[in-house]
Amino acid sequence: MPTEFLTKRKIEFSDTDMAGIVHFSRFFIFMETAEHEFLRSLGTSVATEWNGDKIGWPRLTASCEYLSPLRYEDEVDIRLCVTNISTKSLTYQFHFTLEGTDIARGQLITVCCKTNPGEKIQAIPIPEFISSQISTT
Amino acid sequence: MPTEFLTKRKIEFSDTDMAGIVHFSRFFIFMETAEHEFLRSLGTSVATEWNGDKIGWPRLTASCEYLSPLRYEDEVDIRLCVTNISTKSLTYQFHFTLEGTDIARGQLITVCCKTNPGEKIQAIPIPEFISSQISTT
Amino acid sequence: MPTEFLTKRKIEFSDTDMAGIVHFSRFFIFMETAEHEFLRSLGTSVATEWNGDKIGWPRLTASCEYLSPLRYEDEVDIRLCVTNISTKSLTYQFHFTLEGTDIARGQLITVCCKTNPGEKIQAIPIPEFISSQISTT
Amino acid sequence: MPTEFLTKRKIEFSDTDMAGIVHFSRFFIFMETAEHEFLRSLGTSVATEWNGDKIGWPRLTASCEYLSPLRYEDEVDIRLCVTNISTKSLTYQFHFTLEGTDIARGQLITVCCKTNPGEKIQAIPIPEFISSQISTT
Repeated sequence: MPTEFLTKRKIEFSDTDMAGIVHFSRFFIFMETAEHEFLRSLGTSVATEWNGDKIGWPRLTASCEYLSPLRYEDEVDIRLCVTNISTKSLTYQFHFTLEGTDIARGQLITVCCKTNPGEKIQAIPIPEFISSQISTT
Repeated sequence: MPTEFLTKRKIEFSDTDMAGIVHFSRFFIFMETAEHEFLRSLGTSVATEWNGDKIGWPRLTASCEYLSPLRYEDEVDIRLCVTNISTKSLTYQFHFTLEGTDIARGQLITVCCKTNPGEKIQAIPIPEFISSQISTT
Repeated sequence: MPTEFLTKRKIEFSDTDMAGIVHFSRFFIFMETAEHEFLRSLGTSVATEWNGDKIGWPRLTASCEYLSPLRYEDEVDIRLCVTNISTKSLTYQFHFTLEGTDIARGQLITVCCKTNPGEKIQAIPIPEFISSQISTT
Repeated sequence: MPTEFLTKRKIEFSDTDMAGIVHFSRFFIFMETAEHEFLRSLGTSVATEWNGDKIGWPRLTASCEYLSPLRYEDEVDIRLCVTNISTKSLTYQFHFTLEGTDIARGQLITVCCKTNPGEKIQAIPIPEFISSQISTT
């Protein structure tokens, strides 16, 4: 079964704009926070050390399709699904729903990288203790 | 010639994150601000009135591909290009460059809507005074 | 006993800046969210209706003193205390701590207002069902 | 004459909230950006090197008094004034006006610090090439 992770988020006042709904850019923050909760659930973090190197997950692409607006105090359900894993990158899909109504669908493609200060950022194979916990089928 | 619009943006401290670079979500704010400057250049606004109705431009989709990071005090060039116009929607592509280096490419698809308070948001044909100023060929 | 409310907040990646710590402006978002949780704990909301009017709580002043930095994934404790209540306004003090270490102290002064669309915003006496639940001594 | 610096800022859509006005936390971003423009006008930056050390300006306190709301597309005038300079710290006051109407008054107290990576942040005397350009009388 594909690796999934479920979380929720309560919409804050500062997530909204003058149209009275959540600003479209906020969905990318919501996706990122869900991704980070997922990484913690695997026993790692988006900013961690491994074998003496700093490891991070820069984004290659980010996208979102907006289906229905979110409003202040809504508590949105977010389903993260890992849809692809390659040697060095992960593809996440996100499905936002509110009481069963489709709100948005998003995607992030991230790359595992060494991010040591003073060195050039360099893509590396995903550590086995992470990749071994992820399935896409 | 396709309709184009050029603008610049100086990166602020609060655009950055602990990775020392501009947070990926900020590119969506930069795209939106370029879009709004473009609409003003046509003599309209993202929040305006027309024939007694409030008009807005909700987003259908937003996406970005990240090619190279931006840093504090960088002054990024943003080229907006309208790549599609249909009866009710506009597709914008954005090309971010820093001194000739590719930084990012993004896209927004927006829909022209009546956004009167207390009424359901409803897609409408793009007013002719706007569409007549836009070419995609 | 003065009315108090306790909450927690986990620091997100997008709360940080290139200095590697939480950006100082984020503390005002954290205070606001704690205020709104407090209002919900009283059975009301920062954006509600009462006797046919829309009620809101615009800010008169906001301030914060920074004592020690917060970092990504920190889980900060926030203690809200109502330190003054007048006919139309509330004064909140906020104490941020991390495992017992002082992080910051903040204050918001808010005014109860009618915020009906199309009308001028007007300060009004705090509804009795709210004020009766608050003590400052 | 006290050191002053004038700048302007055009309100963006994402500065607003569902109350239809600029969110109160955004004024702290506006103050910071004005401070940084001021530092650049002195030939320095909020994130710079000097005598082999990284220099930064962490905030001790931040505050704002709100007098009248700002709205989308407003172009607000910001007057920065240095009201105190001590060996290691600067106090800035900010006056926001819109076509002569008072919008807000704010204050930041910042401390000059060595911010070398891997070292504890340490307050230092303001470099003379900066302090010599500032007067409070």
